[in-house]
Amino acid sequence: MMMLIIFASAKLLAELAEKLGQPGIVGEILAGVLIGPAVFGWISMNETIGALSDLGVMFLLFRVGLEVKSSELLDAGPTAALVAFAGVLVPLAGGWALMTAYGYGHAESLFVGAALVATSVGITAQVLSAKGMIQYQASQIILAAAVIDDVLGLIVLAIVSSLARGRLNAGEIALTAILPIVFTFVIARWGTHGVRRAVPAVESKLSHSEAQFHLAMVLLFGLSVLALYTGVAAIVGAFLAGMSLGENVTRRVHDLVHGTTELLVPFFLAGIGLRIEPSIFANPSILVLGGILLLIAVVSKLIGCGLGALRLGRRDAIRVGVGMIPRGEVGMVVAQLGLSMGVLSAPVYGIVVFTALATTLVAPPLLAVAYQDLKAEIELQPAE
Amino acid sequence: MMMLIIFASAKLLAELAEKLGQPGIVGEILAGVLIGPAVFGWISMNETIGALSDLGVMFLLFRVGLEVKSSELLDAGPTAALVAFAGVLVPLAGGWALMTAYGYGHAESLFVGAALVATSVGITAQVLSAKGMIQYQASQIILAAAVIDDVLGLIVLAIVSSLARGRLNAGEIALTAILPIVFTFVIARWGTHGVRRAVPAVESKLSHSEAQFHLAMVLLFGLSVLALYTGVAAIVGAFLAGMSLGENVTRRVHDLVHGTTELLVPFFLAGIGLRIEPSIFANPSILVLGGILLLIAVVSKLIGCGLGALRLGRRDAIRVGVGMIPRGEVGMVVAQLGLSMGVLSAPVYGIVVFTALATTLVAPPLLAVAYQDLKAEIELQPAE
Repeated sequence: MMMLIIFASAKLLAELAEKLGQPGIVGEILAGVLIGPAVFGWISMNETIGALSDLGVMFLLFRVGLEVKSSELLDAGPTAALVAFAGVLVPLAGGWALMTAYGYGHAESLFVGAALVATSVGITAQVLSAKGMIQYQASQIILAAAVIDDVLGLIVLAIVSSLARGRLNAGEIALTAILPIVFTFVIARWGTHGVRRAVPAVESKLSHSEAQFHLAMVLLFGLSVLALYTGVAAIVGAFLAGMSLGENVTRRVHDLVHGTTELLVPFFLAGIGLRIEPSIFANPSILVLGGILLLIAVVSKLIGCGLGALRLGRRDAIRVGVGMIPRGEVGMVVAQLGLSMGVLSAPVYGIVVFTALATTLVAPPLLAVAYQDLKAEIELQPAE
Repeated sequence: MMMLIIFASAKLLAELAEKLGQPGIVGEILAGVLIGPAVFGWISMNETIGALSDLGVMFLLFRVGLEVKSSELLDAGPTAALVAFAGVLVPLAGGWALMTAYGYGHAESLFVGAALVATSVGITAQVLSAKGMIQYQASQIILAAAVIDDVLGLIVLAIVSSLARGRLNAGEIALTAILPIVFTFVIARWGTHGVRRAVPAVESKLSHSEAQFHLAMVLLFGLSVLALYTGVAAIVGAFLAGMSLGENVTRRVHDLVHGTTELLVPFFLAGIGLRIEPSIFANPSILVLGGILLLIAVVSKLIGCGLGALRLGRRDAIRVGVGMIPRGEVGMVVAQLGLSMGVLSAPVYGIVVFTALATTLVAPPLLAVAYQDLKAEIELQPAE
């Protein structure tokens, strides 16, 4: 029943959004807002929806990874690193400055800044992938930058948490940083090569007709778990698993993955909307602060990442900047940590969650505009 | 993590089973037994696994439905009805007789019989579908009989529950029976026709490239929910949804559904294994009773359904009888109801659950043997 309501309402509002010239993804998130506690309250977040939502974003990034060549992603590395660094520093400073100006304490202001750091690449990936624009240079920079950004976000969070506890343990932070960097780099660099050698060898031993799909699923779950152990998000592992497999599996595996992704992604998107609580709208002064923070969250990523990508030209820089805006569930996780550590007060937690979720609604229409003039150009080339 | 262990162990043991000449499905159920509380205790059943498992069996029946023509299923109707009726009466009588002979009370004995009534067609459907034998006559009879069987099981349960409460309300039972019969018959008879008219009309209004898949998912979830409301199992709704769509959607929708099914079915199969509790093995006298009940569960369906299908010839009658053996999660649901009504004692509940689950392990190897001589014949024909 719950699944019917979520899936059908997400797809219905996606259609409506498309009819209004907006990306379908906006409709799917709004469907979650509508059926969730913020408006009608028919559905509330539970363990099962959470699990389907997590699976949805994992498959989303896995599917995107399948379309990305690791060699091209590594080529994008240097520019992406610049984008990621600038895209971390500007929002961190922006969030901190706003909260300090409003009279909040040092630790709380820093935590708000930290929650604005990490980009959730799922939203952008979905928009670009739906429009067939993953292959384009700006898209590759966004994906590479989002992976680096995730590692940087982890380091920032480690530093901010240390500061909030009153001591800065450099050794501990270095350890936090090294493992994910090694993991990400090793898989990105040698994953495709390793899979190319391993898949035929293992496959020849298996008798099932869909053995390659099963191997792909095991690698997907395996790298996602490994990613969590090293500290990065499961979706980074899912993306790397997809990238390692992309050139090594048959078209049929791509199709089978596509089916699963189509089923699960609406749960991820509607799940974002379900998380918006109505309480934020109760207090006007809090709402104003939320609005300003949202503005800072959007502008700071746009400026930071845009500056990092400036050498690609102004238009691509804007595309990259806009693509990095969504924070989504990653910003929420940081906010939850801050709440549980007692660093964030409940109203500030509410604002941060609202901001993180609202960025996912702001980004898709901006992305559609930023990529608009590319569309004609792309349509002249073969999609892949 | 949990997903990795379940999926990987299920697929690994499926491979092992195939190597040993057994259906892969046996390996996947045993994987659940191994990693579950019965042996290693790494994973225990929780809400998320339960949801994935329910989705898995829904997609399994949906995929099978896609391969079945409603006209052929309706042709199989009269024989299937005979199979279903005889397959309900013999196990009901068998279970009741055994428990009465052991000195258990009337109500408890009847409930044990009722738990042996309903076939869970998922296991058989998976074995036949993996071997490409869904199109064969005996398979069609099994599917049609399983649908009728589900409705009959519902009526038996209503009668037995009424008796256990000490009064037999004929009006209430008639009401219980009418709604599911109407639902099942209407969808089976006119579903394909309705979908053939509706799909192009709705699809022409939708802009998304995978709109047909989304419509299929909405119909799947919609009919499953409707089935639950009328009283039959969600998988009957899923099967009918698949059958209505089968001839009306593109090959691509079949492929996308196939991907999702491949991912989810291991959770259904391993989920069966996860439900086996070790406590049943603690008491030898209970274990002996469980063994005898298992024997009766297997033989009574074989005889009842086999006799019902006798006019197809001895070999097909055996195939149908074997195909109807698995009780799985359906028998478990009845047992749980009996336990919650206070009619079944805890040890008897344990035996019934064990029997229901054990039938799913017994059936696949028997099915492989029963269908063996058909294999050569089938392989000469095109698969579809």
